[in-house]
Amino acid sequence: MKLNGDVGESFGHWKMGNDEALMPFLQMANIACGFHAADPDTIMHTLQLAKRYQVTVGAHPSYHDQIGFGRRSIPHSNEQITNLILYQVGALQALAHSQGMQVQYIKPHGALYNDMMNSAHTMQAVFAAAHNLNLPVMLLATAQQEQHLTLAKQYNISLIFEAFADRRYTVDGTLTNRGIDGALLTTTESILSQAKSIIQGKQVLTHSGEWLSIKADTLCVHGDSPHSIEVAKHIREVIEQEED
Amino acid sequence: MKLNGDVGESFGHWKMGNDEALMPFLQMANIACGFHAADPDTIMHTLQLAKRYQVTVGAHPSYHDQIGFGRRSIPHSNEQITNLILYQVGALQALAHSQGMQVQYIKPHGALYNDMMNSAHTMQAVFAAAHNLNLPVMLLATAQQEQHLTLAKQYNISLIFEAFADRRYTVDGTLTNRGIDGALLTTTESILSQAKSIIQGKQVLTHSGEWLSIKADTLCVHGDSPHSIEVAKHIREVIEQEED
Amino acid sequence: MKLNGDVGESFGHWKMGNDEALMPFLQMANIACGFHAADPDTIMHTLQLAKRYQVTVGAHPSYHDQIGFGRRSIPHSNEQITNLILYQVGALQALAHSQGMQVQYIKPHGALYNDMMNSAHTMQAVFAAAHNLNLPVMLLATAQQEQHLTLAKQYNISLIFEAFADRRYTVDGTLTNRGIDGALLTTTESILSQAKSIIQGKQVLTHSGEWLSIKADTLCVHGDSPHSIEVAKHIREVIEQEED
Amino acid sequence: MKLNGDVGESFGHWKMGNDEALMPFLQMANIACGFHAADPDTIMHTLQLAKRYQVTVGAHPSYHDQIGFGRRSIPHSNEQITNLILYQVGALQALAHSQGMQVQYIKPHGALYNDMMNSAHTMQAVFAAAHNLNLPVMLLATAQQEQHLTLAKQYNISLIFEAFADRRYTVDGTLTNRGIDGALLTTTESILSQAKSIIQGKQVLTHSGEWLSIKADTLCVHGDSPHSIEVAKHIREVIEQEED
Repeated sequence: MKLNGDVGESFGHWKMGNDEALMPFLQMANIACGFHAADPDTIMHTLQLAKRYQVTVGAHPSYHDQIGFGRRSIPHSNEQITNLILYQVGALQALAHSQGMQVQYIKPHGALYNDMMNSAHTMQAVFAAAHNLNLPVMLLATAQQEQHLTLAKQYNISLIFEAFADRRYTVDGTLTNRGIDGALLTTTESILSQAKSIIQGKQVLTHSGEWLSIKADTLCVHGDSPHSIEVAKHIREVIEQEED
Repeated sequence: MKLNGDVGESFGHWKMGNDEALMPFLQMANIACGFHAADPDTIMHTLQLAKRYQVTVGAHPSYHDQIGFGRRSIPHSNEQITNLILYQVGALQALAHSQGMQVQYIKPHGALYNDMMNSAHTMQAVFAAAHNLNLPVMLLATAQQEQHLTLAKQYNISLIFEAFADRRYTVDGTLTNRGIDGALLTTTESILSQAKSIIQGKQVLTHSGEWLSIKADTLCVHGDSPHSIEVAKHIREVIEQEED
Repeated sequence: MKLNGDVGESFGHWKMGNDEALMPFLQMANIACGFHAADPDTIMHTLQLAKRYQVTVGAHPSYHDQIGFGRRSIPHSNEQITNLILYQVGALQALAHSQGMQVQYIKPHGALYNDMMNSAHTMQAVFAAAHNLNLPVMLLATAQQEQHLTLAKQYNISLIFEAFADRRYTVDGTLTNRGIDGALLTTTESILSQAKSIIQGKQVLTHSGEWLSIKADTLCVHGDSPHSIEVAKHIREVIEQEED
Repeated sequence: MKLNGDVGESFGHWKMGNDEALMPFLQMANIACGFHAADPDTIMHTLQLAKRYQVTVGAHPSYHDQIGFGRRSIPHSNEQITNLILYQVGALQALAHSQGMQVQYIKPHGALYNDMMNSAHTMQAVFAAAHNLNLPVMLLATAQQEQHLTLAKQYNISLIFEAFADRRYTVDGTLTNRGIDGALLTTTESILSQAKSIIQGKQVLTHSGEWLSIKADTLCVHGDSPHSIEVAKHIREVIEQEED
């Protein structure tokens, strides 16, 4: 089990998140590629930060939508999705290579991530790009895990399944919609408790009160809430205790 | 001697140039990378066109300036220039790899090209990016050729010197400023005549009436004037006759 | 009956359409406002062209989407739609005032136009902006004309209904989807025939072979097809003959 | 003497400054217009904030350069500068009108401000836009005040001269370059002391140790330093004491 987080989401003179504080606790850094956030200088700075803490880096490509921060679903053909992922990951790769680093995986961002999870069509476009880049894709661990693995096999790529420590799950393994009461775990205690269960392979309590098993390779933390650094630190400790 | 041309300069629904007609005559295609022109789909389409005619492809990166078409000099630190070249060339490389193609060189565009020729400082930033990417840089063949080669040696890169068939030279080997009368050769005859001289290693007539020797590896043609396709076709014929 | 056309859709160095040839035949010029096409200079140039031919000018605002040319439906709240229309129309107004001209109406562009026709929610956002600007809205003449007028009354704005000369109608007064065979009238003859029927208040032949009455204030022509200038010229003649 | 400050410089999901805390102390709010910062929603939010505290609003237009935050001098013709100011101020005006507010002046931002102060050519382009919009221009109070007033008279506009509380002046009334040691006043005490001198019409100590008189109509404060809210509060108090 590895801890992953979205970083490098500043843009020009605008800052977002607290990468300097979060990075030391991450094991996988999802780096914005310039289409929803970041610019070449921000990417370079983020890569160097990841390098300092020896964090594995992945590409965090998105629809081209700075104003919407990549959170708006914008109509694209499959070919267009493949092209925009190739473009962004390639850009990140060249900057990474200049620092002696390798991009290790692709985790689509925001609306592109959601569209991939909701549409087999979009997932194929993402997997086609991953196939061309010869990189694994990070996606949500759901009840469709087996179907996703079957599709990935067709594209000859591997998958990295992720779970969320701070989101309440539904009984079918998807995330409770952000609009619904209780969708977000907000106390450090409840987030750590869910993280622990996922790390230890125990079941988590779903929104409807039933229990759910989640088979995940990585846990995602967010760096933009007030106690997120504290949470990341604790989860990282739990992960390392488990490994011993 | 090879014929090179700028291609892939459309943007979304806006078309520029006549790549379909020009590409068959090119030997080196300088492909816009999304910062002054092009988008991921345009790049992919242009790569496929180059592939069809087996044209060597190079990256044509620029300042980030669609509105100014990359022709406005915008202040950048050296580090920023290196980063923006890495970003753009990497993006192009990933798209090229997906088509089984390799990016073979870097030719900066517009104001970035001019700033590189006018400032050793900027040239160093470009060469640093080329060093990281392990690619040659295409630049203007001038009287400073030896100094440029010396600098390139420091960055362990090679250079490709280019000449222009349709621009009047000054006696010191630079291009007559576009604002000056007679700076552009406008008749097919005069362009072909200058192209022939450069290809055959003969001297060309400068703006001041003196004769100049230009040692170039490649000749640049433009695809956006009415008779440019005709000109490209003829220059390509001259090149091939010389090779026989 | 007035002839309207979309103009000013160039962007920086990229040209689109043939405004110089189309403008003399237009009576209402829908001017792009910088979000799907155009920039301040293009807008100014287009205004001056409209002024030369004494063409009434309207704002043609859209979602902020140059790459998609405003043709992609991007999720927005109603408040966001109102704000982006105010922004764009205000920008156009200031440029128009500097030329002694007044913006006379608002015609949403592309996906924003379609979303307005398909969603009462979006129509309210557009009408709210029009109310604040004290300008009429141009929209599609459909079977819902009465409902649209009722809604417009609530916002204290007036409406301008438009019809299309080159699109095949369905029996319920909407446009046949572009993806369907026969959706576009392609011969000058068929376009002129439909234009004539609409201008003279006669019924038009629908896609299913039935006849439809269209009550429109203005006819839209497009400037980007090869014979569009010819078509615009003829329709303008028909309009002027009718007026006599 | 009025207190002015730059506000509304967030962009999409990225926040900048602390407008909520600064606005209550301002008397003139310079609102970003979407070219170096802000978007239609940010502008609307900022206008509503200014309205709540009954702050006079002005337009803060800039070169189109989000990545550089409008701080990079980008080559423009005079006509282009006039057009981009008209566009931005018009956009702000329409949003302001929808809230029953009026834009009262224009203060160019960043590199456009500097270029205006350094080039009579650029100042003419700004004044031409102001003339068309029938609005005053806010600019730096320097030793050239008389020449600037003479030029303004030709454009039939009025000027608002501003001084800076936190910048060290040179003896000729310009600001000491940010790159030079001591260019910025950093203690609350020294900033307040200089503010007080300017408000009371006393001389300020220049970088070279000589004394300088500054005749200004308004004092500019910045909202992005840690103690800037405290500073703004104190300066506002001094202004109000003077008025009694």
